[in-house]
Amino acid sequence: MSVPDAQFHPHATGVAAETVAKHQDPQDVVFWAGWFCPFVQRVWIALEERGIPYQYKEVNPYKKEKHFLDINPKGLVPAVEYQGKALYESLVLLEFLEEAYPSQSTSLFPSDPYDRAIARLWIDHISKNYLPNNWRLTQSQTKEKQDEAREALYEAQRKLVQQVKGPYFFGEKFSIVDAVVAPWIARDWVITENRGYERVAVGEAWVKYAKALCERPSVKKTTSEREHYEPIYGRYLRDEAQSEVAKAVRSGKTLP
Amino acid sequence: MSVPDAQFHPHATGVAAETVAKHQDPQDVVFWAGWFCPFVQRVWIALEERGIPYQYKEVNPYKKEKHFLDINPKGLVPAVEYQGKALYESLVLLEFLEEAYPSQSTSLFPSDPYDRAIARLWIDHISKNYLPNNWRLTQSQTKEKQDEAREALYEAQRKLVQQVKGPYFFGEKFSIVDAVVAPWIARDWVITENRGYERVAVGEAWVKYAKALCERPSVKKTTSEREHYEPIYGRYLRDEAQSEVAKAVRSGKTLP
Repeated sequence: MSVPDAQFHPHATGVAAETVAKHQDPQDVVFWAGWFCPFVQRVWIALEERGIPYQYKEVNPYKKEKHFLDINPKGLVPAVEYQGKALYESLVLLEFLEEAYPSQSTSLFPSDPYDRAIARLWIDHISKNYLPNNWRLTQSQTKEKQDEAREALYEAQRKLVQQVKGPYFFGEKFSIVDAVVAPWIARDWVITENRGYERVAVGEAWVKYAKALCERPSVKKTTSEREHYEPIYGRYLRDEAQSEVAKAVRSGKTLP
Repeated sequence: MSVPDAQFHPHATGVAAETVAKHQDPQDVVFWAGWFCPFVQRVWIALEERGIPYQYKEVNPYKKEKHFLDINPKGLVPAVEYQGKALYESLVLLEFLEEAYPSQSTSLFPSDPYDRAIARLWIDHISKNYLPNNWRLTQSQTKEKQDEAREALYEAQRKLVQQVKGPYFFGEKFSIVDAVVAPWIARDWVITENRGYERVAVGEAWVKYAKALCERPSVKKTTSEREHYEPIYGRYLRDEAQSEVAKAVRSGKTLP
């Protein structure tokens, strides 16, 4: 969903590059990805957690393959190609992977319908309260706006962590809620180093939760080397990014 | 989700009042509702379509029952109480009802995982592109802003109707996408009479789709008499409404 517009590294690096290398063979699921994108990472985490066979394809946002645009005219990543048809939107893809591969042993959803609804409620909270303030904090250029966004982000994280049973959202089992939020926690060094954000300001419970997610193998295996994220997030920090997310945040509109 | 703040009629009227009268007995599902609210109507349509036994309880937004606030501290409607626990958010409730009552014969979701993902993608389109422009058109006070919102709404409706197989979104079977959008179509007389909106400006296909939804028994059975909606929407049209939705639209923020 987010398209970098800096001179950026064209493919995954570090541990993520090893993961990519293991997923080159043709499979029923073709995962059209961008190594840098947090929305992509959500789906990537789910694929790794669930052991679904997939073929990783890096989409160069400036040079999209004809086949990719044929099946997915908007050209958005993450996208999943399945039996020749494409789907997009990270949350839709997460639900799709559950339904197309309904193994209860690897499901990231709890089995009880009430708990599944709780998962969706807190994913909704992340979409509406956590993410917009995280982007706003990153892109804001005045101290006043940064202070406001940082406080709103802390508040959203406090509400979320009150629901976390620990170490993961639903307890011992890593779940869909964890997959949805982990990519932003794995990138919070951006706001820590540049925007005065501190995990400990949310509370000790958040420090523990953030650590548990960052140490999760599926999160590590889908994270590239920090130095290659830096030029991309540098453009967000200077509010020069031209991705759909960046433009929406700048104009105060709903995130795409 | 939307709370009226005019002197408003305290309960459903017309055909909807008959529906309420039929759903007074205690059931596993307690449906906490507001007769006027389009988000409530989504869930109400689903309950009626699927024949799920439910007890209807009207929530007076100025005088919420203690039990309701005990199980649902935010006090939001629509809410569903199930085995003593409450859930809220219309889209979460629609998914919950599917999972708690998984009868394929009455399911509003298609059975194929790909089609289910398509349903969720277009529900996302309705949430992000249709609804915000519908509210903006209603609340905008200048011709320029109204023109802009009306065009954006037409565009969102054109994109949606291109996917409609007819008479309903997925063809002959009424689906979750239809339930999600119907309440706004059933209320489009507000923008037709006050904001220069015309169904035919979207296209003939939209005229047919809108008619099919408005004639659907579950939509009719959950719609009250127009005269009682009027004072509520009058406040939106004068941009005096104080509901969460109204305030979000006014400030240009993400809809709650």
